[in-house]
Amino acid sequence: MATVEWDADAGGLTLIDQTRLPEVEVYLTCRSAAEVARAIREMVVRGAPAIGAAAAYGAALAARDGDFEHGVAELRAARPTARDLFAGVERVEAAFRRGGPEAALEEAHAIARESVDECRRIGAHGAALVPQDARIVTICNTGALATVDYGTALGVVRAAHEAGKRPFVYAMETRPRAQGARLTTWELRRLHIEHRLIADSAAGLLLQRGMVDLALAGADRVCANGDVVNKVGTYMLALLCREHGLPFYVAAPSSTRDEATPTGADVRIEERPAAEVTTLAPAGTEAWNPAFDVTPAALVSALITERGVLQEAGAWRA
Amino acid sequence: MATVEWDADAGGLTLIDQTRLPEVEVYLTCRSAAEVARAIREMVVRGAPAIGAAAAYGAALAARDGDFEHGVAELRAARPTARDLFAGVERVEAAFRRGGPEAALEEAHAIARESVDECRRIGAHGAALVPQDARIVTICNTGALATVDYGTALGVVRAAHEAGKRPFVYAMETRPRAQGARLTTWELRRLHIEHRLIADSAAGLLLQRGMVDLALAGADRVCANGDVVNKVGTYMLALLCREHGLPFYVAAPSSTRDEATPTGADVRIEERPAAEVTTLAPAGTEAWNPAFDVTPAALVSALITERGVLQEAGAWRA
Repeated sequence: MATVEWDADAGGLTLIDQTRLPEVEVYLTCRSAAEVARAIREMVVRGAPAIGAAAAYGAALAARDGDFEHGVAELRAARPTARDLFAGVERVEAAFRRGGPEAALEEAHAIARESVDECRRIGAHGAALVPQDARIVTICNTGALATVDYGTALGVVRAAHEAGKRPFVYAMETRPRAQGARLTTWELRRLHIEHRLIADSAAGLLLQRGMVDLALAGADRVCANGDVVNKVGTYMLALLCREHGLPFYVAAPSSTRDEATPTGADVRIEERPAAEVTTLAPAGTEAWNPAFDVTPAALVSALITERGVLQEAGAWRA
Repeated sequence: MATVEWDADAGGLTLIDQTRLPEVEVYLTCRSAAEVARAIREMVVRGAPAIGAAAAYGAALAARDGDFEHGVAELRAARPTARDLFAGVERVEAAFRRGGPEAALEEAHAIARESVDECRRIGAHGAALVPQDARIVTICNTGALATVDYGTALGVVRAAHEAGKRPFVYAMETRPRAQGARLTTWELRRLHIEHRLIADSAAGLLLQRGMVDLALAGADRVCANGDVVNKVGTYMLALLCREHGLPFYVAAPSSTRDEATPTGADVRIEERPAAEVTTLAPAGTEAWNPAFDVTPAALVSALITERGVLQEAGAWRA
């Protein structure tokens, strides 16, 4: 499986089409920045680190095709919230200024390689926090599909599994796009990690009944004050964890941190089409469909990064 | 529209088929207790007060058909959580013991009539708590479809609307059965009450961004200590309300109170088929699908009943 992979023969970026999973496993090859931007917009590729690497390759394609400014502008406009997209584009842009199209492609390769390495380190650091036979609740998809490979929060579960800790996962389905129902279950099945799917709303009773030991989430952006912007629903999960005395961990590469964004209130939260929510509603029903929310720093027990486990001052500790 | 209506000509109970809404408006007539039990089980009729009235008519059909014990046992087994089902059956049973099948049917009629009257009183008491231009978040469906007519929590919204208060509703879709997406939107549209549909997980950001003034929910059972058993997801909504300093009101007839159940921990929470959650997941995915959760009494600002607005000792007050 290749979430984000450069195809040297085709001269393009190959992506597994995540809008088609789990029914079919098909791959698309994007041959221009515009095609990569479209794949990001339509969520063929999603997950902050995967978007970051894809956007980096998109910028390298723009560099190669001689329309850098326009290509990069399209990539930046694809999705507004995840820090990784902007970070990936910035790095490739700097390399391009320095050394032209070849340097741009080399930088994209470096970003992809580093991302896999970071995920494995996140997994190793995080697994140390996971007790034997831990029952873990997760939101969205934060596995290999959300990254270049291995995963962030789900990478921690995977590392715990590889360390023989036998984690058991309750995967929140994550409406409206169902990344938990479609993608996390698909990955856990391939990894032979035991799991159950739950409706997002069932997280409350799950914690109430003592069925979970800890929660793990990813992050699309970590603000300067430690606020975590992540998939909509993360905030209520974090609130439930504090209410029930459970640790709420966020796993993300340290590049997710954005010192230029002071707090969660300063983040532009992407609002996606109403149609994602209204499929079962009467024709003409309007919807409000934000893709992310803000988990205040105080609700995060620790941030698991490739550099180690970080705790904010005043963080929630179970 | 008749959610629950006795058809004297047919000698049966007519129900709007809520599994088919909002696509089509079709009615089923149940001619035996077994048919009513099946309609409750399959959620052709749902919502605690509607289930209570339907079960009462089911018991009257059992009385008429001369197989009372068996019919009533089937009705009791249809769904385990809502207090109203048992209360309805108990009243018809007592009437039957007293006066035979005719008295049983009279009692079912009385229950249905009283239910409508109670809902209108709940609406009037509750509307007094709703400010002008209030923005209200709701979960599940608690309108005419959940009752014999008018509704409980949505009845409060309706009464506020009728009083010229121009309420605006954010309706949580209420996975996995989507009663919010399918039924609440359908009712609000007919009532010309402005509304937006949201994913259940979006409630967090909604409150975080100050987009709501209060929350209204129904109840399937109110325990002796004031704990409220209601649609799964209600608990996290109540927790969010306390976190953001907003009132969380529960609207239900006083018969929902069950003195025989000391606390929420003593309630049997119905677990429904995994297939309701796994539609988008890989084949063979297992799910945990509880239909209700428990909102501790301390998170409920007030209980709106036909007798007035009640506050528990220690209740959350915004």
